Amino acid sequence: MTLQEMGQAAKDAAVALATLPTATKNAVLQKAADALLIAKEQILAENKKDVQTAVTAGIKGAFIDRLTLDEKRLADMANGLREVAALNDPVGKIRSINTLENGLVIKQVSVPMGVIGMIFEARPNVTADAFGLCFKAGSAVLLRGGKEAIATNKAIVSVFQKVLEDMGLPKAAVQIVQDTSRETASEMMRLDKYLDLLIPRGGAGLIQTVVQNSTVPVIQTGVGNCHVYVDASADLQKAVNIVLNAKTQRPGVCNACESLLIHESLQDSFLPMIAEALQQKQVELRGDATVCQKVAGTVQATEQDWATEYADYILSVRVVKNIDEAIAHIRKYSTGHSEAIVTEHTKNAERFLQEVDAAAVYVNASTRFTDGGQFGLGAEIGISTQKLHARGPMGLKELTTTKYMIYGDGQIRI
Amino acid sequence: MTLQEMGQAAKDAAVALATLPTATKNAVLQKAADALLIAKEQILAENKKDVQTAVTAGIKGAFIDRLTLDEKRLADMANGLREVAALNDPVGKIRSINTLENGLVIKQVSVPMGVIGMIFEARPNVTADAFGLCFKAGSAVLLRGGKEAIATNKAIVSVFQKVLEDMGLPKAAVQIVQDTSRETASEMMRLDKYLDLLIPRGGAGLIQTVVQNSTVPVIQTGVGNCHVYVDASADLQKAVNIVLNAKTQRPGVCNACESLLIHESLQDSFLPMIAEALQQKQVELRGDATVCQKVAGTVQATEQDWATEYADYILSVRVVKNIDEAIAHIRKYSTGHSEAIVTEHTKNAERFLQEVDAAAVYVNASTRFTDGGQFGLGAEIGISTQKLHARGPMGLKELTTTKYMIYGDGQIRI
Repeated sequence: MTLQEMGQAAKDAAVALATLPTATKNAVLQKAADALLIAKEQILAENKKDVQTAVTAGIKGAFIDRLTLDEKRLADMANGLREVAALNDPVGKIRSINTLENGLVIKQVSVPMGVIGMIFEARPNVTADAFGLCFKAGSAVLLRGGKEAIATNKAIVSVFQKVLEDMGLPKAAVQIVQDTSRETASEMMRLDKYLDLLIPRGGAGLIQTVVQNSTVPVIQTGVGNCHVYVDASADLQKAVNIVLNAKTQRPGVCNACESLLIHESLQDSFLPMIAEALQQKQVELRGDATVCQKVAGTVQATEQDWATEYADYILSVRVVKNIDEAIAHIRKYSTGHSEAIVTEHTKNAERFLQEVDAAAVYVNASTRFTDGGQFGLGAEIGISTQKLHARGPMGLKELTTTKYMIYGDGQIRI
Repeated sequence: MTLQEMGQAAKDAAVALATLPTATKNAVLQKAADALLIAKEQILAENKKDVQTAVTAGIKGAFIDRLTLDEKRLADMANGLREVAALNDPVGKIRSINTLENGLVIKQVSVPMGVIGMIFEARPNVTADAFGLCFKAGSAVLLRGGKEAIATNKAIVSVFQKVLEDMGLPKAAVQIVQDTSRETASEMMRLDKYLDLLIPRGGAGLIQTVVQNSTVPVIQTGVGNCHVYVDASADLQKAVNIVLNAKTQRPGVCNACESLLIHESLQDSFLPMIAEALQQKQVELRGDATVCQKVAGTVQATEQDWATEYADYILSVRVVKNIDEAIAHIRKYSTGHSEAIVTEHTKNAERFLQEVDAAAVYVNASTRFTDGGQFGLGAEIGISTQKLHARGPMGLKELTTTKYMIYGDGQIRI
């Protein structure tokens, strides 16, 4: 099948999905979860092939870890589908209703997006998550995952397609692009005739490529150069806890802290405290001149460091004169994901909340909370760092659009 | 100034605008309205130059009409600014608030978009409208209007900038790109470092160029190939009124009807009625074989006709077997703007509302109502025909984004 044909099939499937009763959607998700477990052997066997090919190609470390499935991860994927089944149906919600003087009734109602494309790296769990969320939101999904996971992805998608067919539904509700060449990714970015939305999930390079080349509306997700600013009035113990948590609780994720800004009045109190605590956790510090002078073992930070999402046990650290300098620094280097201030000064807290331009701004809490699960959305398809349509964790609601339905009795415009 | 410099200036201005009190914004808008009227002579003189240049270049008709200002139109522009001043401030509205078990308070608040770009044709009123709406929504706006209106646009923008400076505000809150070459338009489409949103306003060609080339998130506006389907059970008098209104009340606009679908059972009743009524209004009919056979003076419609937004006294007309064929036709040719069914059959009405995929779907009313003013939004910057962020008439609310503000007391993620 060509990508055009897949797009058309998805568009046709979307028509059927749009009006599917909630109970049917939930039944499909439950059966899909069951079917994943039933097909366990086969999926794990295909995954083993993928992993072996990757290892043979010399790929190592965290990449292999993310690629590898085992019984527990497969069970997590199945549970993820059941959790989505348990969430409220986001389709058909009345967002507003209004009766005009001429008697027209105008309802704004949430409706499915239509066809959603996803381009992502070699993480098989995304395949199941994306199907679950898009399906529950009434949209067809066209998946283009990393080439290293293709055998696994094909196995998972064929399990879902079998369930759909058994339920009398179009299997094009979920499709995986089998040709994982760069060309198919590029072609998918220009499939605006069929795709209503394209979500890239992965590193900054992938996301930038999609933004630069896509003619399909895109939601940028995930790149997080997150800052914590410790203000003069901060409670130092809270500050230590928050910085340690934001940096080290899970350093590889997008809501981890990458850069620490410290008010200059704290350079002989908080700075040595946090430096010691971080170094005990094996965090490499890259500091400005003051930090290098005060903290042994600090590497001099370069301009590049301030702009880097390390996703690792590394933290850039800068001493600033005041909150203005902190906000200006964040304005310059932030990717608009999550930013935090630690302060006991109400006015500074409010200034930070108002003036820092990011999806999530925190007072006295760890940036690690920016997450659909934590925010109570139930599940998320990604964290939007752009301003259009959705900003911050994207749940089912953000996968829908709206339609105005207008009820008249012969009204014409005068 | 280069476009990059203008982008940076707009971004800096946006910081100041984001936290501006409502009263200040309203005062600026009132003064801008006053200033337009005070500068009347000068603006009209510049407009006269633009019009003369265009006429000398051989441009005619509706284009010249849209380009031309007079005292009344200038007064309308000023009144438009006062109307925006009277609308509720869309910034700082709490969209949701939630306290988590760990005590974190999560507020989702509406905040300004930042910097909005607009690319539009030679219509000077758009310059004032765009400034008014973007400014009230707390965003800076970078305008790139049609080259034929450049002298007028410069005069209008310099009036607004003077008001801003007098009020101690950054004049880069509104800027007009003075170099109206194709190159600056292309460069603006790739100014994603500075622009948060780009809105093209104009014909289908302009909008497609922007969609195909922009790396800035775009909202597509306005192209409307709108259908009216007259069902077997329609009240024929309502149907005549609705079709006449949708086609002829103002044929040049995007919510006008371009294509009429008629249930085959009405080919000897409604078809001759409406054909006569339309022909009396000088509407040219382009029909399928049945229509050509039944109605004298009908031109045979080509495949191209079904896909055309005439924006003129022309209507394509097709006889369909049933509602399924009508919905399938609309699905194939609709631009997703406004679609109407005339029916007294509740189930068909509901099917049409559910299954037709457009920004606005109507039962027994004219498509001409799709408009921010009619819908009660107060004013509109355009009508979105895409599904991301905003769909249908876009008012002040749609020019904002959201931010999560999270209030903690030292919470960390476990």
